[in-house]
Amino acid sequence: MKQFKTEIIAVGTELLLGQIANTNAQWISKELALYGINVFYHGVVGDNLKRVEDTFVQAQERSDVIIVTGGLGPTDDDLTREAFQRLSNLEIIEHNLSMEKIEAYFQKQQTKMTPNNRKQARIFKDSDVIENEVGMAPGMILSYQDKTWVFLPGVPKEMKHMLSQKVLPYLKTLSGEDTIIKSTMLKFIGIGEAHLEDELSDIIHQQSNPTIAPLAQNEGVAIRLTAKASSPKEAEELIDQAKIEILKRVGSFCYGVDDQKLEEKVFQLLKQQELHLAAAESFTGGMFTEKLISIPGASEVCRGGIVCYDKKVKTDVLNISTETIFEYGTVSKECAKEMAINSCHVMDADLGISFTGVAGPKEEEGKPVGTVFIAIHRKNKDTVVENYSFFGDRQTIRRRAILKGYELLYNYLK
Amino acid sequence: MKQFKTEIIAVGTELLLGQIANTNAQWISKELALYGINVFYHGVVGDNLKRVEDTFVQAQERSDVIIVTGGLGPTDDDLTREAFQRLSNLEIIEHNLSMEKIEAYFQKQQTKMTPNNRKQARIFKDSDVIENEVGMAPGMILSYQDKTWVFLPGVPKEMKHMLSQKVLPYLKTLSGEDTIIKSTMLKFIGIGEAHLEDELSDIIHQQSNPTIAPLAQNEGVAIRLTAKASSPKEAEELIDQAKIEILKRVGSFCYGVDDQKLEEKVFQLLKQQELHLAAAESFTGGMFTEKLISIPGASEVCRGGIVCYDKKVKTDVLNISTETIFEYGTVSKECAKEMAINSCHVMDADLGISFTGVAGPKEEEGKPVGTVFIAIHRKNKDTVVENYSFFGDRQTIRRRAILKGYELLYNYLK
Repeated sequence: MKQFKTEIIAVGTELLLGQIANTNAQWISKELALYGINVFYHGVVGDNLKRVEDTFVQAQERSDVIIVTGGLGPTDDDLTREAFQRLSNLEIIEHNLSMEKIEAYFQKQQTKMTPNNRKQARIFKDSDVIENEVGMAPGMILSYQDKTWVFLPGVPKEMKHMLSQKVLPYLKTLSGEDTIIKSTMLKFIGIGEAHLEDELSDIIHQQSNPTIAPLAQNEGVAIRLTAKASSPKEAEELIDQAKIEILKRVGSFCYGVDDQKLEEKVFQLLKQQELHLAAAESFTGGMFTEKLISIPGASEVCRGGIVCYDKKVKTDVLNISTETIFEYGTVSKECAKEMAINSCHVMDADLGISFTGVAGPKEEEGKPVGTVFIAIHRKNKDTVVENYSFFGDRQTIRRRAILKGYELLYNYLK
Repeated sequence: MKQFKTEIIAVGTELLLGQIANTNAQWISKELALYGINVFYHGVVGDNLKRVEDTFVQAQERSDVIIVTGGLGPTDDDLTREAFQRLSNLEIIEHNLSMEKIEAYFQKQQTKMTPNNRKQARIFKDSDVIENEVGMAPGMILSYQDKTWVFLPGVPKEMKHMLSQKVLPYLKTLSGEDTIIKSTMLKFIGIGEAHLEDELSDIIHQQSNPTIAPLAQNEGVAIRLTAKASSPKEAEELIDQAKIEILKRVGSFCYGVDDQKLEEKVFQLLKQQELHLAAAESFTGGMFTEKLISIPGASEVCRGGIVCYDKKVKTDVLNISTETIFEYGTVSKECAKEMAINSCHVMDADLGISFTGVAGPKEEEGKPVGTVFIAIHRKNKDTVVENYSFFGDRQTIRRRAILKGYELLYNYLK
């Protein structure tokens, strides 16, 4: 393997003003590290032609691969191409394919395209163009005096897409790296990070290939397994062996791997069991249903939902009895139960889930902020209701309730 | 005021591996910006003596004030002092006060102090020592060949404390700066960044106080106005004058200032006009209602919503006529219209909004991915329906539809 020095340069005054952190450099570094590619420097420079040029001159001297993010957009502040041209004298031309895409975008949006948008389609002649599949300005890879330059947009989504699709495979070939790094994430729900680490502490400390690292996640916790091997097959075997040992101990909490989300797992289980779900949401405002419908194909398992934030919608649309509300209040076990049952009836579903609670900022019906009831009803069968007391601000309480709802459904269906 | 070039250098391999983002540089930059101190470069270098030295040599050449974070700790990897000594030949001595503090700490913890902890108490002779009130290694300010060097620990809490308490007042004196910096954001919807810049290009380029900078945002675009003045009142007046000129040209697109969100503006307008809103959402799955209900007090303006993803929920719960669906399909002007009207009736609202469309991945009813209809109905009054063609993946199309829905409502209510 050929070792080369890599440098990452971000162009943008917004970084020097502290308006954003340079998370692009962090993300790129992390990805490169997985391929065993060493990053020697990060640099940030503002939208100033001379200073960007100076920074590029230095990088050309000290590094072998230079990855530049930002400065490819439509405004006068976007100077990356101009600065590199001052250094290299390479010719800049308009990239027809990108220009067509930009024009098509404005046509489709039925908005006037201002002339400065043309700027974005410019590339260095003879560079390897990286199509921008999620935005406008294309990226570029080019070779200049034995050094490799990679130019990427500063918008994280666009940069990440190009790096994963095109730049990483290119750099891997360039490095002739023959060690494979493979990483897998096991995802858990219903167990805390400390508890998980405790259960696995001996193997976490003894094991070096794959390495085993617990991580706190937005949804539950995860364990990252990272193996180094000479072939993908060998790496997979190493990971599989460790996985077996881990799942033997804490498998009952594991719901999936890698990018799988809990709602996707619930979606799969509903699909396998040919069940249709409906939701009745009060203080969660549609967040549960929204997550499920964000999955392609959700129509196969999700009837829909009723966001009954107002008492009147509870009684008129969801047919909750006024007696229940009068006697127990809307934030009650009884109301949650009726909401789950009626959501099944009203929306002709096999399974109904309901959320009612107090998200704050003030208590309601004498119940403190954080009080949450979640019910699950199976048509012609049982209804379960759970009562929680969550901690945090309005958004945190709502998000925790939704996560808990998916956890309950997952446990119910698995 | 004396203008000087400032550079921020972070020392630490963990940054180059992407384990953490360089949020220290962001935070310092933001603080310095408030004092009108210009940062020209951020740099990150790993724990390698030669490369740290090289980075320092360059900074000594190109900058007036150099702020270094990290590399002052107890381990062999902490090389900031050694690297600067190679460049400057300044003498390093042990700082008694810091040493006593470190010893006292270990005594209090009843743990044995390993010898490498002594390293942390070392300072450059004649430097201005910054006591570490929340950790161990002291910071330093020193002058070397007309340049000012500031050395701070990499631990954010320690760095922030030292910067606020000692470094900022020092730099303020150094610059002779007696000006106030004030910054305001104007937020726009319904106009692109390029178009906005086009409309304002002359004042953006002529104006230097306040500076005027357009920024793309998740929700529409914004303009940041930053004024320097000798008093808050004067800064406000400068901003107000520029604001008037900007709003004269593009005021019809401006919905708020600073952190205000579009849904908050809509919430306020609904509240002022004492209107109750209900939503009928198909492919957006509850995202519209969710955003509104995330605002504290939403119950005053929002009845709720019906997520009618399934055709049966459209007909059974929302009473959409089967004829409409049969004749025009669910993704149609006619269906959107009926959804908005019926959401008012079913949920007893004054205003109804509806979303129907094709989020993908596949076309539906012969309508291509990205087709979206949004309707707004005012009870006993008119109904407006808009037809859009959005670009992007499933999530992007759904998010754009929601943003457009809020934009339509805002224009309808304002």
